[in-house]
Amino acid sequence: MEFSSKLLEKAVNEMSQLPGVGKRTALRLVLHLLRQPESQTVQLAQALLNMRTEIKFCKSCNNISDNVLCEICANPRRQEEIICVVEDIRDVMAIENTSSFKGLYHVLGGKISPMDGIGPHDLNINPLVNKIKEGRVKELIFALSPTMEGDTTNFYIFKQIQDLDVVTSTIARGISIGDELEYADEVTLGRSILNRIPFEGSLKS
Amino acid sequence: MEFSSKLLEKAVNEMSQLPGVGKRTALRLVLHLLRQPESQTVQLAQALLNMRTEIKFCKSCNNISDNVLCEICANPRRQEEIICVVEDIRDVMAIENTSSFKGLYHVLGGKISPMDGIGPHDLNINPLVNKIKEGRVKELIFALSPTMEGDTTNFYIFKQIQDLDVVTSTIARGISIGDELEYADEVTLGRSILNRIPFEGSLKS
Repeated sequence: MEFSSKLLEKAVNEMSQLPGVGKRTALRLVLHLLRQPESQTVQLAQALLNMRTEIKFCKSCNNISDNVLCEICANPRRQEEIICVVEDIRDVMAIENTSSFKGLYHVLGGKISPMDGIGPHDLNINPLVNKIKEGRVKELIFALSPTMEGDTTNFYIFKQIQDLDVVTSTIARGISIGDELEYADEVTLGRSILNRIPFEGSLKS
Repeated sequence: MEFSSKLLEKAVNEMSQLPGVGKRTALRLVLHLLRQPESQTVQLAQALLNMRTEIKFCKSCNNISDNVLCEICANPRRQEEIICVVEDIRDVMAIENTSSFKGLYHVLGGKISPMDGIGPHDLNINPLVNKIKEGRVKELIFALSPTMEGDTTNFYIFKQIQDLDVVTSTIARGISIGDELEYADEVTLGRSILNRIPFEGSLKS
């Protein structure tokens, strides 16, 4: 792609570093900014800079935070004896949206994935194990995606803490609410029969 | 969407102002930046700011430029008596990529589109008419998209200059190279028969 301006070329090149943004999309976005008032670009650039340089990670759970402790860890009304292990901050947001969990989180920052060169030591696992060794955690809920990498990560953590005095559980896997049974994949359907729950239990919303 | 950080929320909100970028995509992009070295965000922000505040529009053709005149208008080897009228800078880039045009451009900055509230006076049309009145332009090539708005814009400009001493032409419309005839739309196919060209002419690459 030939650009008539080095400034434009630089902006497009930087924009196309973002995941899923190719050169053409980057050019479209940058030309859009050119047509908008200058203040929009200034605000975007400033917001990105402030976010990147000033944001903190919660000392306790590794969630993104504006303070040393995130709002969830700092909230005295959350049950600090239940910890939900998640992959990243988007999972925290998804679970918070359901309003069905009142414990704390622990954000690993990824999953063990040898294919991508991510081992246990690249993740935030040791602080979790130490937290459990301190003895105040009663239940650990694994809420990683039900994939090979998620299961591997769950199992790795489980091995570290299995001799400690903590109950472990994993989020229920089964047919999604509203799904048609005939289109469900066979592993999910098979497990949902093996792991069936008492009918009264399913009535809880 | 609930954010655990105001800085993150602000960055996501600004990012989702871009066309085609929703809140979820914006969050994905912003979290990606958080995982990358700080320098990447600094460079992106700086490139966008520099681009928006320092970029110029060529005094002659309205193309994006780093100087008062763009590289094309400033190039003495281009034929200044032929002007190609295009909608925006992406069209200039597309035509330049073909290396088949050696004249100058005139960038309108849009098309007449009453539906979007864009009239002739919102576009860079008057400078073009003045340029032609000066008498140095011999040929004007309309290279707008063959849509209703493009045709309207062509016709509006044509009416302004029809009494002046300038040849007007429009880029050829017809079946794209490599297209299957049976799948071509009927307007295109019909016109390609009406506007057929001498066979020897089609041999020029």
